Amino acid sequence: MINEMYKDMTGKGSVIREFFTYANKVAAEIGPENVFNYTIGNPSVPVPQEFTDYMIELLQTKNPVTLHGYSPSLGIDSTRQAVADSLNRRFGMNYTADHIFMTSGAAGAIAHAVRCVVKDGDEVITFAPYFPEYVPYITGTGAKLTIIPADIDTFQINFDEFEKALNKNVQAVLINSPNNPSGIVYSTATIKKLTEILYKKQEEYGHDIYLISDEPYREIVFKGTDSPFICSFYDNSICCYSFSKSVSLPGERIGYVAVNPACKDAKLIVLMCGQISRFTGHNCPPSIIQLGVEKILDMTSDLSIYEKNKEILYKELTRIGYHVVEPGGTFYMFPRSLCPDANEFCWKAAKELNLILVPGDSFNCPGHFRISYCVTTDMVERSIPLFEKLYEMYN
Amino acid sequence: MINEMYKDMTGKGSVIREFFTYANKVAAEIGPENVFNYTIGNPSVPVPQEFTDYMIELLQTKNPVTLHGYSPSLGIDSTRQAVADSLNRRFGMNYTADHIFMTSGAAGAIAHAVRCVVKDGDEVITFAPYFPEYVPYITGTGAKLTIIPADIDTFQINFDEFEKALNKNVQAVLINSPNNPSGIVYSTATIKKLTEILYKKQEEYGHDIYLISDEPYREIVFKGTDSPFICSFYDNSICCYSFSKSVSLPGERIGYVAVNPACKDAKLIVLMCGQISRFTGHNCPPSIIQLGVEKILDMTSDLSIYEKNKEILYKELTRIGYHVVEPGGTFYMFPRSLCPDANEFCWKAAKELNLILVPGDSFNCPGHFRISYCVTTDMVERSIPLFEKLYEMYN
Repeated sequence: MINEMYKDMTGKGSVIREFFTYANKVAAEIGPENVFNYTIGNPSVPVPQEFTDYMIELLQTKNPVTLHGYSPSLGIDSTRQAVADSLNRRFGMNYTADHIFMTSGAAGAIAHAVRCVVKDGDEVITFAPYFPEYVPYITGTGAKLTIIPADIDTFQINFDEFEKALNKNVQAVLINSPNNPSGIVYSTATIKKLTEILYKKQEEYGHDIYLISDEPYREIVFKGTDSPFICSFYDNSICCYSFSKSVSLPGERIGYVAVNPACKDAKLIVLMCGQISRFTGHNCPPSIIQLGVEKILDMTSDLSIYEKNKEILYKELTRIGYHVVEPGGTFYMFPRSLCPDANEFCWKAAKELNLILVPGDSFNCPGHFRISYCVTTDMVERSIPLFEKLYEMYN
Repeated sequence: MINEMYKDMTGKGSVIREFFTYANKVAAEIGPENVFNYTIGNPSVPVPQEFTDYMIELLQTKNPVTLHGYSPSLGIDSTRQAVADSLNRRFGMNYTADHIFMTSGAAGAIAHAVRCVVKDGDEVITFAPYFPEYVPYITGTGAKLTIIPADIDTFQINFDEFEKALNKNVQAVLINSPNNPSGIVYSTATIKKLTEILYKKQEEYGHDIYLISDEPYREIVFKGTDSPFICSFYDNSICCYSFSKSVSLPGERIGYVAVNPACKDAKLIVLMCGQISRFTGHNCPPSIIQLGVEKILDMTSDLSIYEKNKEILYKELTRIGYHVVEPGGTFYMFPRSLCPDANEFCWKAAKELNLILVPGDSFNCPGHFRISYCVTTDMVERSIPLFEKLYEMYN
């Protein structure tokens, strides 16, 4: 008999996907230039040319049997070493290859990291607003996901609520900074306060609490933003990275887990990741893509368009009268909705103005909407009058 | 606290891996030409040149933002359609794109297929000898794996034991033909008998029983072998394929699930696969590899070397006196061990002759050993005197 849980889920579409599909439908009817699609976080700038050149070189010069051969289950040795070297060079850490596990993007990284440190019935805490896929990533491990409500004035951490929620069952805290959907980067003060609490609670509870840091937007940070390397503040920290956003390779499903060398079980956790793969059917990211990203570990795509789009949107939306917490990075912005029901608000924008936004309810933060501005600056500029009209409809 | 189950597993190495590591150690000491490494199923012939050429063309000509963009969660539309077309053309089936789900190799395919049709506590049956990773693939879903002992005279299905083991909790039967490690291909008579029993038991139990067919060796079949397309015999059948063996792309982690259109829940099962991915952190095989394999769906690598190696080994080993069931495909052979403890036998061959074999206990079939002959014919020819010496040691 088919599994009823997964069956039931097929009926429940994602709201983001619903708006995205609507945008495509309207674009087909009235032309894409007349639809302002701010729904999807798909990078709009190309991967560095060095990646493409190196991939072609690998295909032209390497023995295909070796090139396409099985990766070791923890990742290709040279790739793991190169990732460690790059992190050490850029963030003053001391990772070795033994601290790195190559994954299928951040999804794979989080799925592995969480399974390493929880068992059925344990608790993982995360902070609203958060990427909605955290729910299946965490519940798929058998753990319970507890959500700390957002501090909607800053989108830093709501520490009062966090301290109230902490209890002995909490084995891991999952954070995402720079944040999807708010665009906010956790400050050094926030990270210090968070890790101080975790150190104190580890002692109080008599067990380790892991900080799992989901960092696909790590390199997409705007000038002047305080953007600490989170794992340097806490021994039991596991960095989950993806090459999807900073180098625009979302479809190639490549990322890694990097376990802090200061964590006493660091190398063991990496070995455990290799075992976990056997249960989920994951088994390594593709060999050629592992080799390809080795060449661009210290690079990013040209990210300047995201900052330019942010500048325009933030300046214009605040001028119009929207309440927006200024993003420090990513290609997202998370203004307040002009009516309490953000879903209603977003459908109004979509249907009356072809301005396609995403309601914050999907990110467990009602009363807000997400703008994904990984789009052309031309589209951003042409959309401003629509944001103006939308504002007028409510004022 | 770290998860004890995965922690304990890190201490338990695979026996295959142990022999493989030993072979490499000895090769480093006395030269690889003096070690006869028959341990690993890593293809030894290159992918068709058309794949390499097309990958280079994609990299040189396609917009990188599109090329490396997110794949839809069920796979790229054109790839799914091309897979369906190829299966229909070659096996007279009537798949559409809606019946295909792209996966990370056969591991990903089996992990998804099983999760679709079981829940915690259900039972899945497979047949010895079998690929040892079936254990985590199945137990990772929460189901119990029941093993039917081998018919060591033919390595077809042991139907007496199968019928004894069947019960109402059995929701799926997992088969692998052409088989790793025996190299045997299930005959039309075997598949007919198996599916007749399943049809009868479905009726008796009042619920569907799924036939999950793991087929990475489907195209590696030697001349004269009866090799039916298994899914054509049974409505509730799910084909799990990998491009690892037939086109030598094991490291690129690409495969698919194809659900028989005659299965009443076929399209629903494919949609469910998309939901299951969210829990395991899998999220699609890489975009560029999906596009790449589209070009070689009806091709194989030059597989003639495997058949040539089989011919030599089968002829020579039977001449010497070994008991071998002649393989119909794959690049494996599974002779009887010359002493009851195949582990002891394989260590003797390794230590005294540098002839590295793998004991059948790993495949739940004691008293046998596996030869992986995806190696050079030169190595095969030079190893025959060693098999001869090994035989003399026991006779």
